[in-house]
Amino acid sequence: MAHTTRPLILVTNDDGIYAPGIAALVEVARTFGDVVVVAPDKPQSGMGHAITINSTLRVDKVPAHTGAEAWSCSGTPVDCVKMAVNKLLPRTPDLCVSGINHGANHSINIIYSGTMSAAIEAAIEGIPAIGFSLLNHSIEADFSAAKVAAAAVIAQVLKNGLPNGVCLNVNIPKLHIDEIKGLKVCRQGRASWIEDLDERTDPSGRTYYWLTGHFESFEPDSDDTDVWALHHGYVSVVPAQFDLTAHSALGGLSEMNSVSLSTIEQS
Amino acid sequence: MAHTTRPLILVTNDDGIYAPGIAALVEVARTFGDVVVVAPDKPQSGMGHAITINSTLRVDKVPAHTGAEAWSCSGTPVDCVKMAVNKLLPRTPDLCVSGINHGANHSINIIYSGTMSAAIEAAIEGIPAIGFSLLNHSIEADFSAAKVAAAAVIAQVLKNGLPNGVCLNVNIPKLHIDEIKGLKVCRQGRASWIEDLDERTDPSGRTYYWLTGHFESFEPDSDDTDVWALHHGYVSVVPAQFDLTAHSALGGLSEMNSVSLSTIEQS
Repeated sequence: MAHTTRPLILVTNDDGIYAPGIAALVEVARTFGDVVVVAPDKPQSGMGHAITINSTLRVDKVPAHTGAEAWSCSGTPVDCVKMAVNKLLPRTPDLCVSGINHGANHSINIIYSGTMSAAIEAAIEGIPAIGFSLLNHSIEADFSAAKVAAAAVIAQVLKNGLPNGVCLNVNIPKLHIDEIKGLKVCRQGRASWIEDLDERTDPSGRTYYWLTGHFESFEPDSDDTDVWALHHGYVSVVPAQFDLTAHSALGGLSEMNSVSLSTIEQS
Repeated sequence: MAHTTRPLILVTNDDGIYAPGIAALVEVARTFGDVVVVAPDKPQSGMGHAITINSTLRVDKVPAHTGAEAWSCSGTPVDCVKMAVNKLLPRTPDLCVSGINHGANHSINIIYSGTMSAAIEAAIEGIPAIGFSLLNHSIEADFSAAKVAAAAVIAQVLKNGLPNGVCLNVNIPKLHIDEIKGLKVCRQGRASWIEDLDERTDPSGRTYYWLTGHFESFEPDSDDTDVWALHHGYVSVVPAQFDLTAHSALGGLSEMNSVSLSTIEQS
Protein backbone atom coordinates (compact mmCIF):
# COMPACT_ATOMS: atom_id res chain seq x y z
CA MET A 1 0.00 0.00 0.00
CA ALA A 2 1.39 3.41 -0.92
CA HIS A 3 2.35 5.62 1.98
CA THR A 4 -0.04 8.37 0.96
CA THR A 5 -3.10 6.13 1.17
CA ARG A 6 -2.67 5.48 4.89
CA PRO A 7 -4.97 7.58 7.10
CA LEU A 8 -3.33 10.43 9.00
CA ILE A 9 -4.30 10.10 12.65
CA LEU A 10 -3.89 12.82 15.28
CA VAL A 11 -3.52 11.48 18.82
CA THR A 12 -3.98 13.68 21.89
CA ASN A 13 -5.11 13.39 25.51
CA ASP A 14 -5.47 15.32 28.75
CA ASP A 15 -3.25 13.28 31.06
CA GLY A 16 -0.11 14.53 29.32
CA ILE A 17 2.11 13.23 26.54
CA TYR A 18 3.98 10.78 28.80
CA ALA A 19 0.89 9.09 30.30
CA PRO A 20 0.64 5.32 29.77
CA GLY A 21 -2.87 5.75 28.34
CA ILE A 22 -1.71 7.78 25.35
CA ALA A 23 1.10 5.31 24.70
CA ALA A 24 -1.53 2.57 24.49
CA LEU A 25 -3.61 4.61 22.06
CA VAL A 26 -0.60 5.41 19.86
CA GLU A 27 0.11 1.67 19.63
CA VAL A 28 -3.43 1.02 18.42
CA ALA A 29 -3.53 4.01 16.07
CA ARG A 30 -0.27 2.97 14.40
CA THR A 31 -1.93 -0.21 13.18
CA PHE A 32 -4.41 1.94 11.19
CA GLY A 33 -2.35 4.81 9.84
CA ASP A 34 0.40 7.40 10.16
CA VAL A 35 0.32 8.89 13.62
CA VAL A 36 1.20 12.37 14.86
CA VAL A 37 0.90 13.03 18.57
CA VAL A 38 0.23 16.56 19.84
CA ALA A 39 -0.50 16.41 23.55
CA PRO A 40 -0.18 18.52 26.69
CA ASP A 41 3.21 18.75 28.40
CA LYS A 42 1.50 18.25 31.79
CA PRO A 43 -1.75 16.80 33.16
CA GLN A 44 -4.78 18.81 32.03
CA SER A 45 -7.63 16.80 33.56
CA GLY A 46 -10.82 18.72 34.17
CA MET A 47 -9.86 21.47 31.75
CA GLY A 48 -13.13 21.15 29.84
CA HIS A 49 -13.16 23.13 26.62
CA ALA A 50 -10.63 25.69 27.88
CA ILE A 51 -8.40 27.49 25.40
CA THR A 52 -5.35 29.66 26.00
CA ILE A 53 -6.07 33.23 24.97
CA ASN A 54 -4.39 35.32 27.67
CA SER A 55 -0.97 33.70 27.50
CA THR A 56 1.36 32.18 24.94
CA LEU A 57 1.68 28.64 23.64
CA ARG A 58 4.84 26.58 23.10
CA VAL A 59 5.35 23.31 21.25
CA ASP A 60 8.41 21.07 21.32
CA LYS A 61 9.15 17.99 19.24
CA VAL A 62 9.85 15.17 21.70
CA PRO A 63 10.86 11.50 21.32
CA ALA A 64 7.90 10.40 23.42
CA HIS A 65 6.41 7.67 21.24
CA THR A 66 8.00 4.97 19.09
CA GLY A 67 7.06 5.20 15.42
CA ALA A 68 5.13 8.45 15.74
CA GLU A 69 6.07 12.09 15.44
CA ALA A 70 5.27 13.66 18.80
CA TRP A 71 4.83 17.25 19.93
CA SER A 72 4.56 18.40 23.50
CA CYS A 73 2.32 21.49 23.89
CA SER A 74 2.12 23.90 26.80
CA GLY A 75 -1.64 24.40 26.37
CA THR A 76 -4.92 22.63 27.01
CA PRO A 77 -6.19 19.59 25.07
CA VAL A 78 -8.27 21.91 22.85
CA ASP A 79 -5.19 24.06 22.20
CA CYS A 80 -3.36 20.88 21.14
CA VAL A 81 -5.98 20.14 18.48
CA LYS A 82 -5.94 23.72 17.20
CA MET A 83 -2.13 23.73 17.13
CA ALA A 84 -2.02 20.37 15.35
CA VAL A 85 -4.59 21.16 12.70
CA ASN A 86 -3.50 24.73 12.00
CA LYS A 87 0.26 24.54 12.42
CA LEU A 88 1.89 21.14 12.87
CA LEU A 89 0.13 18.64 10.59
CA PRO A 90 0.87 18.50 6.87
CA ARG A 91 -2.87 18.20 6.11
CA THR A 92 -6.21 17.83 7.86
CA PRO A 93 -6.11 14.48 9.66
CA ASP A 94 -8.52 11.70 8.70
CA LEU A 95 -9.17 10.93 12.34
CA CYS A 96 -8.48 12.37 15.78
CA VAL A 97 -8.34 10.06 18.79
CA SER A 98 -8.01 11.31 22.35
CA GLY A 99 -6.99 9.33 25.43
CA ILE A 100 -6.92 6.67 26.59
CA ASN A 101 -7.93 8.63 29.66
CA HIS A 102 -6.98 7.30 33.07
CA GLY A 103 -10.49 7.47 34.57
CA ALA A 104 -14.16 7.61 33.55
CA ASN A 105 -15.70 10.23 31.28
CA HIS A 106 -19.25 8.89 31.05
CA SER A 107 -22.50 10.82 31.68
CA ILE A 108 -22.03 14.40 32.97
CA ASN A 109 -18.25 13.95 33.14
CA ILE A 110 -18.00 14.61 29.40
CA ILE A 111 -18.47 18.34 29.97
CA TYR A 112 -15.53 18.61 32.41
CA SER A 113 -13.29 16.29 30.43
CA GLY A 114 -10.22 17.53 28.61
CA THR A 115 -10.08 14.19 26.78
CA MET A 116 -13.55 14.65 25.31
CA SER A 117 -13.14 18.39 24.73
CA ALA A 118 -10.22 17.59 22.42
CA ALA A 119 -12.44 15.17 20.48
CA ILE A 120 -15.26 17.73 20.37
CA GLU A 121 -12.86 20.41 19.11
CA ALA A 122 -11.78 18.07 16.31
CA ALA A 123 -15.46 17.54 15.46
CA ILE A 124 -15.95 21.33 15.36
CA GLU A 125 -13.11 21.43 12.82
CA GLY A 126 -14.85 18.75 10.74
CA ILE A 127 -12.58 15.85 11.69
CA PRO A 128 -14.01 12.44 12.70
CA ALA A 129 -13.04 12.08 16.35
CA ILE A 130 -13.22 9.62 19.23
CA GLY A 131 -12.38 10.02 22.91
CA PHE A 132 -11.45 6.91 24.90
CA SER A 133 -11.52 6.56 28.68
CA LEU A 134 -10.79 3.58 30.92
CA LEU A 135 -12.60 3.30 34.24
CA ASN A 136 -9.32 3.04 36.12
CA HIS A 137 -7.50 6.05 37.52
CA SER A 138 -4.30 4.17 38.31
CA ILE A 139 -1.05 5.12 36.61
CA GLU A 140 -0.46 1.35 36.43
CA ALA A 141 -3.85 0.60 34.85
CA ASP A 142 -4.03 -2.38 32.47
CA PHE A 143 -4.94 -0.96 29.05
CA SER A 144 -5.06 -4.28 27.18
CA ALA A 145 -8.87 -4.55 27.02
CA ALA A 146 -9.16 -0.82 26.28
CA LYS A 147 -6.81 -1.28 23.33
CA VAL A 148 -9.02 -4.01 21.86
CA ALA A 149 -12.09 -1.82 22.26
CA ALA A 150 -10.29 1.19 20.77
CA ALA A 151 -9.22 -0.86 17.76
CA ALA A 152 -12.79 -2.03 17.21
CA VAL A 153 -14.25 1.49 17.35
CA ILE A 154 -11.49 3.04 15.22
CA ALA A 155 -12.02 0.37 12.57
CA GLN A 156 -15.75 1.14 12.46
CA VAL A 157 -15.22 4.90 12.22
CA LEU A 158 -12.56 4.65 9.51
CA LYS A 159 -14.90 2.35 7.54
CA ASN A 160 -18.23 4.17 8.02
CA GLY A 161 -17.29 7.72 9.06
CA LEU A 162 -19.36 9.72 11.51
CA PRO A 163 -22.28 12.10 10.99
CA ASN A 164 -21.22 15.72 10.56
CA GLY A 165 -20.83 17.48 13.92
CA VAL A 166 -20.76 14.23 15.91
CA CYS A 167 -17.87 12.58 17.73
CA LEU A 168 -17.83 9.50 19.95
CA ASN A 169 -17.38 9.26 23.70
CA VAL A 170 -16.13 5.72 24.40
CA ASN A 171 -15.72 4.45 27.96
CA ILE A 172 -14.26 1.04 28.78
CA PRO A 173 -15.09 -0.81 31.99
CA LYS A 174 -12.31 -2.01 34.28
CA LEU A 175 -12.62 -5.64 33.20
CA HIS A 176 -10.60 -8.31 31.44
CA ILE A 177 -11.38 -8.47 27.71
CA ASP A 178 -13.10 -11.85 28.17
CA GLU A 179 -15.51 -10.29 30.64
CA ILE A 180 -16.55 -7.44 28.34
CA LYS A 181 -19.88 -8.13 26.61
CA GLY A 182 -19.29 -5.86 23.62
CA LEU A 183 -19.91 -2.31 22.42
CA LYS A 184 -23.17 -0.57 23.34
CA VAL A 185 -24.28 2.58 21.54
CA CYS A 186 -26.17 4.62 24.11
CA ARG A 187 -26.99 8.06 25.44
CA GLN A 188 -25.33 10.12 28.16
CA GLY A 189 -26.86 9.16 31.52
CA ARG A 190 -28.32 11.85 33.75
CA ALA A 191 -26.03 12.24 36.70
CA SER A 192 -24.22 14.84 38.76
CA TRP A 193 -21.41 15.33 41.22
CA ILE A 194 -22.44 16.11 44.77
CA GLU A 195 -19.62 18.41 45.79
CA ASP A 196 -17.93 18.25 49.12
CA LEU A 197 -15.43 21.10 49.37
CA ASP A 198 -12.71 19.76 51.63
CA GLU A 199 -11.77 22.71 53.87
CA ARG A 200 -8.22 22.88 55.28
CA THR A 201 -5.93 25.40 56.94
CA ASP A 202 -2.53 26.24 55.49
CA PRO A 203 0.62 26.76 57.63
CA SER A 204 -0.14 30.52 57.72
CA GLY A 205 -3.60 29.91 59.17
CA ARG A 206 -5.52 30.73 55.97
CA THR A 207 -8.35 28.53 54.72
CA TYR A 208 -8.14 26.70 51.43
CA TYR A 209 -10.28 24.08 49.69
CA TRP A 210 -9.99 20.96 47.60
CA LEU A 211 -12.83 20.37 45.14
CA THR A 212 -14.04 16.82 45.75
CA GLY A 213 -17.34 14.98 45.85
CA HIS A 214 -19.18 11.82 44.97
CA PHE A 215 -20.89 10.80 41.78
CA GLU A 216 -24.66 10.31 41.72
CA SER A 217 -26.59 8.71 38.88
CA PHE A 218 -30.17 10.01 38.60
CA GLU A 219 -31.38 7.03 36.56
CA PRO A 220 -29.31 3.94 37.45
CA ASP A 221 -32.02 1.60 36.11
CA SER A 222 -32.40 3.10 32.62
CA ASP A 223 -30.83 0.54 30.31
CA ASP A 224 -30.09 2.98 27.46
CA THR A 225 -27.43 5.04 29.24
CA ASP A 226 -23.65 4.86 29.37
CA VAL A 227 -23.76 4.47 33.15
CA TRP A 228 -25.93 1.35 32.80
CA ALA A 229 -23.83 -0.07 29.95
CA LEU A 230 -20.58 0.25 31.89
CA HIS A 231 -22.12 -1.18 35.05
CA HIS A 232 -23.29 -4.18 33.04
CA GLY A 233 -19.99 -4.98 31.38
CA TYR A 234 -20.28 -3.13 28.07
CA VAL A 235 -18.04 -0.59 26.39
CA SER A 236 -20.26 2.52 26.14
CA VAL A 237 -20.30 4.45 22.85
CA VAL A 238 -22.10 7.80 23.08
CA PRO A 239 -22.41 10.04 20.01
CA ALA A 240 -21.70 13.57 21.23
CA GLN A 241 -22.37 16.94 19.64
CA PHE A 242 -21.27 20.52 20.12
CA ASP A 243 -24.57 22.19 19.23
CA LEU A 244 -25.75 23.04 22.75
CA THR A 245 -29.14 24.40 21.63
CA ALA A 246 -32.00 22.86 23.60
CA HIS A 247 -34.14 22.60 20.48
CA SER A 248 -37.09 21.16 22.40
CA ALA A 249 -37.22 24.30 24.56
CA LEU A 250 -37.46 26.80 21.68
CA GLY A 251 -41.25 26.67 21.35
CA GLY A 252 -41.99 27.07 25.05
CA LEU A 253 -39.86 30.19 25.28
CA SER A 254 -41.47 31.99 22.32
CA GLU A 255 -43.40 34.27 24.70
CA MET A 256 -40.12 36.11 25.17
CA ASN A 257 -40.23 37.28 21.56
CA SER A 258 -43.05 39.66 22.43
CA VAL A 259 -41.39 41.30 25.45
CA SER A 260 -40.99 44.99 24.71
CA LEU A 261 -37.72 46.47 25.89
CA SER A 262 -38.97 50.03 25.50
CA THR A 263 -41.50 49.64 28.32
CA ILE A 264 -38.86 48.59 30.83
CA GLU A 265 -37.40 51.30 33.01
CA GLN A 266 -33.66 51.65 32.74
CA SER A 267 -32.08 51.33 36.16
CA MET B 1 -42.35 42.35 51.54
CA ALA B 2 -40.61 40.10 54.05
CA HIS B 3 -36.91 39.65 53.46
CA THR B 4 -37.23 35.88 53.11
CA THR B 5 -39.59 36.12 50.15
CA ARG B 6 -37.04 37.90 47.96
CA PRO B 7 -35.30 35.60 45.47
CA LEU B 8 -31.69 34.71 46.25
CA ILE B 9 -29.59 35.47 43.17
CA LEU B 10 -26.04 34.25 42.58
CA VAL B 11 -24.00 36.49 40.28
CA THR B 12 -20.77 35.33 38.65
CA ASN B 13 -18.77 35.96 35.48
CA ASP B 14 -15.50 35.13 33.74
CA ASP B 15 -13.96 38.58 33.37
CA GLY B 16 -13.24 38.77 37.08
CA ILE B 17 -15.04 40.22 40.09
CA TYR B 18 -13.92 43.81 39.39
CA ALA B 19 -15.00 43.93 35.72
CA PRO B 20 -17.52 46.66 34.83
CA GLY B 21 -19.82 44.06 33.26
CA ILE B 22 -20.45 42.21 36.52
CA ALA B 23 -21.05 45.51 38.32
CA ALA B 24 -23.78 46.26 35.77
CA LEU B 25 -25.33 42.83 36.31
CA VAL B 26 -25.25 43.19 40.11
CA GLU B 27 -27.13 46.49 39.75
CA VAL B 28 -29.85 44.78 37.72
CA ALA B 29 -30.02 41.69 39.94
CA ARG B 30 -30.42 43.80 43.09
CA THR B 31 -33.73 45.13 41.76
CA PHE B 32 -35.06 41.54 41.76
CA GLY B 33 -33.65 39.96 44.91
CA ASP B 34 -30.88 39.46 47.42
CA VAL B 35 -27.58 39.16 45.62
CA VAL B 36 -24.45 37.20 46.45
CA VAL B 37 -21.48 37.54 44.09
CA VAL B 38 -18.96 34.72 43.79
CA ALA B 39 -16.63 35.48 40.90
CA PRO B 40 -13.06 34.82 39.77
CA ASP B 41 -10.26 36.92 41.25
CA LYS B 42 -8.75 37.33 37.77
CA PRO B 43 -9.90 37.16 34.12
CA GLN B 44 -10.93 33.60 33.15
CA SER B 45 -12.08 34.11 29.57
CA GLY B 46 -11.95 31.03 27.37
CA MET B 47 -11.84 28.68 30.34
CA GLY B 48 -14.81 26.69 29.05
CA HIS B 49 -16.11 24.18 31.57
CA ALA B 50 -12.76 23.83 33.34
CA ILE B 51 -12.67 22.90 37.02
CA THR B 52 -9.78 22.97 39.47
CA ILE B 53 -8.92 19.44 40.58
CA ASN B 54 -5.12 19.42 40.71
CA SER B 55 -4.68 22.50 42.87
CA THR B 56 -6.39 24.25 45.75
CA LEU B 57 -9.09 26.89 45.82
CA ARG B 58 -9.26 30.05 47.91
CA VAL B 59 -12.16 32.43 48.54
CA ASP B 60 -12.03 35.88 50.12
CA LYS B 61 -14.89 38.16 51.08
CA VAL B 62 -14.30 41.47 49.32
CA PRO B 63 -16.10 44.83 49.28
CA ALA B 64 -16.39 44.73 45.50
CA HIS B 65 -20.08 45.50 45.01
CA THR B 66 -22.44 47.91 46.76
CA GLY B 67 -25.39 46.21 48.41
CA ALA B 68 -24.24 42.68 47.72
CA GLU B 69 -22.12 40.18 49.59
CA ALA B 70 -19.15 39.43 47.34
CA TRP B 71 -16.58 36.64 47.31
CA SER B 72 -13.47 36.56 45.19
CA CYS B 73 -12.47 33.02 44.18
CA SER B 74 -9.13 31.77 42.87
CA GLY B 75 -10.78 29.25 40.52
CA THR B 76 -12.61 29.08 37.23
CA PRO B 77 -16.20 30.31 36.67
CA VAL B 78 -17.46 26.73 37.15
CA ASP B 79 -15.50 26.48 40.41
CA CYS B 80 -17.21 29.70 41.54
CA VAL B 81 -20.65 28.17 41.07
CA LYS B 82 -19.66 24.96 42.89
CA MET B 83 -18.11 26.97 45.74
CA ALA B 84 -21.16 29.24 45.99
CA VAL B 85 -23.76 26.47 45.97
CA ASN B 86 -21.90 24.03 48.19
CA LYS B 87 -20.10 26.30 50.65
CA LEU B 88 -20.91 30.00 50.61
CA LEU B 89 -24.66 30.44 50.05
CA PRO B 90 -27.16 29.93 52.87
CA ARG B 91 -29.46 27.96 50.53
CA THR B 92 -29.77 26.95 46.88
CA PRO B 93 -30.19 30.17 44.91
CA ASP B 94 -33.39 30.84 42.97
CA LEU B 95 -31.41 32.11 40.02
CA CYS B 96 -27.83 32.29 38.78
CA VAL B 97 -26.82 35.04 36.37
CA SER B 98 -23.41 35.20 34.75
CA GLY B 99 -21.79 38.18 33.02
CA ILE B 100 -22.31 40.66 31.64
CA ASN B 101 -19.44 39.41 29.51
CA HIS B 102 -17.25 41.91 27.71
CA GLY B 103 -17.53 40.31 24.26
CA ALA B 104 -19.75 37.97 22.24
CA ASN B 105 -20.67 34.41 23.25
CA HIS B 106 -23.05 33.52 20.44
CA SER B 107 -22.91 30.42 18.21
CA ILE B 108 -19.86 28.17 18.71
CA ASN B 109 -18.39 30.59 21.25
CA ILE B 110 -20.67 29.17 23.94
CA ILE B 111 -18.46 26.09 24.28
CA TYR B 112 -15.28 28.10 25.00
CA SER B 113 -17.03 30.63 27.23
CA GLY B 114 -16.41 30.77 30.96
CA THR B 115 -19.48 33.01 31.28
CA MET B 116 -21.77 30.38 29.77
CA SER B 117 -20.02 27.46 31.47
CA ALA B 118 -20.92 29.02 34.82
CA ALA B 119 -24.56 29.23 33.73
CA ILE B 120 -24.45 25.64 32.43
CA GLU B 121 -22.95 24.44 35.71
CA ALA B 122 -25.80 26.11 37.60
CA ALA B 123 -28.26 24.33 35.29
CA ILE B 124 -26.50 21.01 36.05
CA GLU B 125 -27.10 21.76 39.72
CA GLY B 126 -30.81 22.39 39.03
CA ILE B 127 -30.70 26.20 39.28
CA PRO B 128 -32.37 28.42 36.65
CA ALA B 129 -29.49 30.24 35.01
CA ILE B 130 -28.78 32.90 32.41
CA GLY B 131 -25.51 34.04 30.85
CA PHE B 132 -25.32 37.58 29.43
CA SER B 133 -22.78 38.87 26.93
CA LEU B 134 -22.43 42.26 25.24
CA LEU B 135 -20.91 42.44 21.77
CA ASN B 136 -18.30 44.92 22.93
CA HIS B 137 -14.89 43.87 24.23
CA SER B 138 -13.97 47.30 25.58
CA ILE B 139 -13.33 47.79 29.28
CA GLU B 140 -15.22 51.07 28.78
CA ALA B 141 -18.22 49.43 27.08
CA ASP B 142 -21.62 51.06 27.61
CA PHE B 143 -23.76 48.49 29.45
CA SER B 144 -26.95 50.57 29.61
CA ALA B 145 -28.84 48.70 26.85
CA ALA B 146 -27.50 45.38 28.12
CA LYS B 147 -28.91 46.17 31.56
CA VAL B 148 -32.38 46.76 30.12
CA ALA B 149 -32.20 43.49 28.21
CA ALA B 150 -30.92 41.63 31.28
CA ALA B 151 -33.78 43.01 33.38
CA ALA B 152 -36.32 41.89 30.79
CA VAL B 153 -34.95 38.34 30.59
CA ILE B 154 -34.51 37.97 34.36
CA ALA B 155 -38.12 39.10 34.90
CA GLN B 156 -39.34 36.45 32.45
CA VAL B 157 -37.28 33.67 34.01
CA LEU B 158 -38.28 34.55 37.58
CA LYS B 159 -41.94 34.59 36.45
CA ASN B 160 -42.01 31.50 34.23
CA GLY B 161 -38.97 29.44 35.24
CA LEU B 162 -36.97 27.41 32.75
CA PRO B 163 -37.30 23.80 31.58
CA ASN B 164 -35.24 21.35 33.64
CA GLY B 165 -31.68 21.09 32.32
CA VAL B 166 -31.93 24.26 30.22
CA CYS B 167 -30.24 27.64 30.76
CA LEU B 168 -30.26 30.73 28.55
CA ASN B 169 -27.45 32.20 26.48
CA VAL B 170 -28.31 35.89 25.99
CA ASN B 171 -26.22 38.11 23.71
CA ILE B 172 -26.82 41.83 23.35
CA PRO B 173 -25.80 43.76 20.22
CA LYS B 174 -23.59 46.83 20.50
CA LEU B 175 -26.45 49.28 19.96
CA HIS B 176 -28.32 51.99 21.80
CA ILE B 177 -31.46 50.68 23.50
CA ASP B 178 -33.67 52.59 21.02
CA GLU B 179 -32.03 50.74 18.14
CA ILE B 180 -32.63 47.26 19.61
CA LYS B 181 -35.67 45.56 18.05
CA GLY B 182 -36.41 43.23 20.97
CA LEU B 183 -35.64 39.74 22.23
CA LYS B 184 -35.41 36.86 19.77
CA VAL B 185 -35.52 33.24 20.93
CA CYS B 186 -33.34 31.33 18.50
CA ARG B 187 -30.87 28.51 18.03
CA GLN B 188 -27.07 28.49 18.12
CA GLY B 189 -25.77 29.36 14.66
CA ARG B 190 -23.32 27.03 12.93
CA ALA B 191 -19.96 28.76 12.89
CA SER B 192 -16.31 28.22 13.64
CA TRP B 193 -13.05 30.02 14.32
CA ILE B 194 -10.48 29.82 11.57
CA GLU B 195 -7.30 29.77 13.61
CA ASP B 196 -4.22 31.72 12.72
CA LEU B 197 -1.47 30.84 15.17
CA ASP B 198 0.61 33.99 15.40
CA GLU B 199 4.23 32.74 15.51
CA ARG B 200 6.85 34.89 17.28
CA THR B 201 10.38 34.57 18.62
CA ASP B 202 11.19 35.31 22.24
CA PRO B 203 14.38 37.18 23.34
CA SER B 204 16.13 33.80 23.78
CA GLY B 205 15.40 32.82 20.18
CA ARG B 206 12.70 30.26 21.00
CA THR B 207 9.41 30.16 19.10
CA TYR B 208 6.11 30.84 20.81
CA TYR B 209 2.53 31.30 19.59
CA TRP B 210 -0.56 33.39 20.26
CA LEU B 211 -3.86 31.66 19.53
CA THR B 212 -5.81 34.01 17.28
CA GLY B 213 -8.13 33.75 14.32
CA HIS B 214 -11.24 35.03 12.63
CA PHE B 215 -14.85 34.06 13.08
CA GLU B 216 -16.73 32.42 10.22
CA SER B 217 -20.49 31.88 10.13
CA PHE B 218 -21.53 28.85 8.04
CA GLU B 219 -25.11 30.02 7.61
CA PRO B 220 -25.25 33.83 7.72
CA ASP B 221 -28.62 33.91 5.93
CA SER B 222 -30.54 31.53 8.24
CA ASP B 223 -32.94 33.79 10.12
CA ASP B 224 -33.43 31.45 13.10
CA THR B 225 -29.89 31.71 14.50
CA ASP B 226 -28.30 33.92 17.15
CA VAL B 227 -25.78 35.22 14.61
CA TRP B 228 -28.62 36.46 12.38
CA ALA B 229 -30.58 37.93 15.30
CA LEU B 230 -27.62 39.95 16.56
CA HIS B 231 -26.72 41.13 13.08
CA HIS B 232 -30.29 42.36 12.63
CA GLY B 233 -30.53 44.30 15.88
CA TYR B 234 -32.10 41.74 18.22
CA VAL B 235 -31.02 40.45 21.61
CA SER B 236 -30.47 36.72 21.00
CA VAL B 237 -31.87 34.24 23.55
CA VAL B 238 -30.68 30.66 23.00
CA PRO B 239 -31.86 27.86 25.31
CA ALA B 240 -28.77 25.76 26.03
CA GLN B 241 -28.43 22.26 27.47
CA PHE B 242 -25.69 20.12 28.97
CA ASP B 243 -26.84 16.78 27.55
CA LEU B 244 -24.30 16.45 24.74
CA THR B 245 -25.81 13.24 23.34
CA ALA B 246 -26.38 13.48 19.60
CA HIS B 247 -29.71 11.67 19.89
CA SER B 248 -30.32 11.78 16.14
CA ALA B 249 -27.12 9.80 15.57
CA LEU B 250 -27.98 6.89 17.88
CA GLY B 251 -29.91 4.90 15.27
CA GLY B 252 -27.31 5.20 12.54
CA LEU B 253 -24.57 3.89 14.82
CA SER B 254 -26.44 0.79 15.98
CA GLU B 255 -24.31 -1.40 13.70
CA MET B 256 -21.59 -1.01 16.32
CA ASN B 257 -23.65 -2.99 18.82
CA SER B 258 -22.94 -6.16 16.87
CA VAL B 259 -19.16 -5.75 16.65
CA SER B 260 -17.57 -8.70 18.43
CA LEU B 261 -14.54 -7.80 20.50
CA SER B 262 -13.45 -11.41 20.82
CA THR B 263 -12.64 -11.70 17.12
CA ILE B 264 -10.24 -8.75 17.18
CA GLU B 265 -6.57 -9.54 17.61
CA GLN B 266 -5.00 -7.91 20.63
CA SER B 267 -1.96 -5.92 19.60
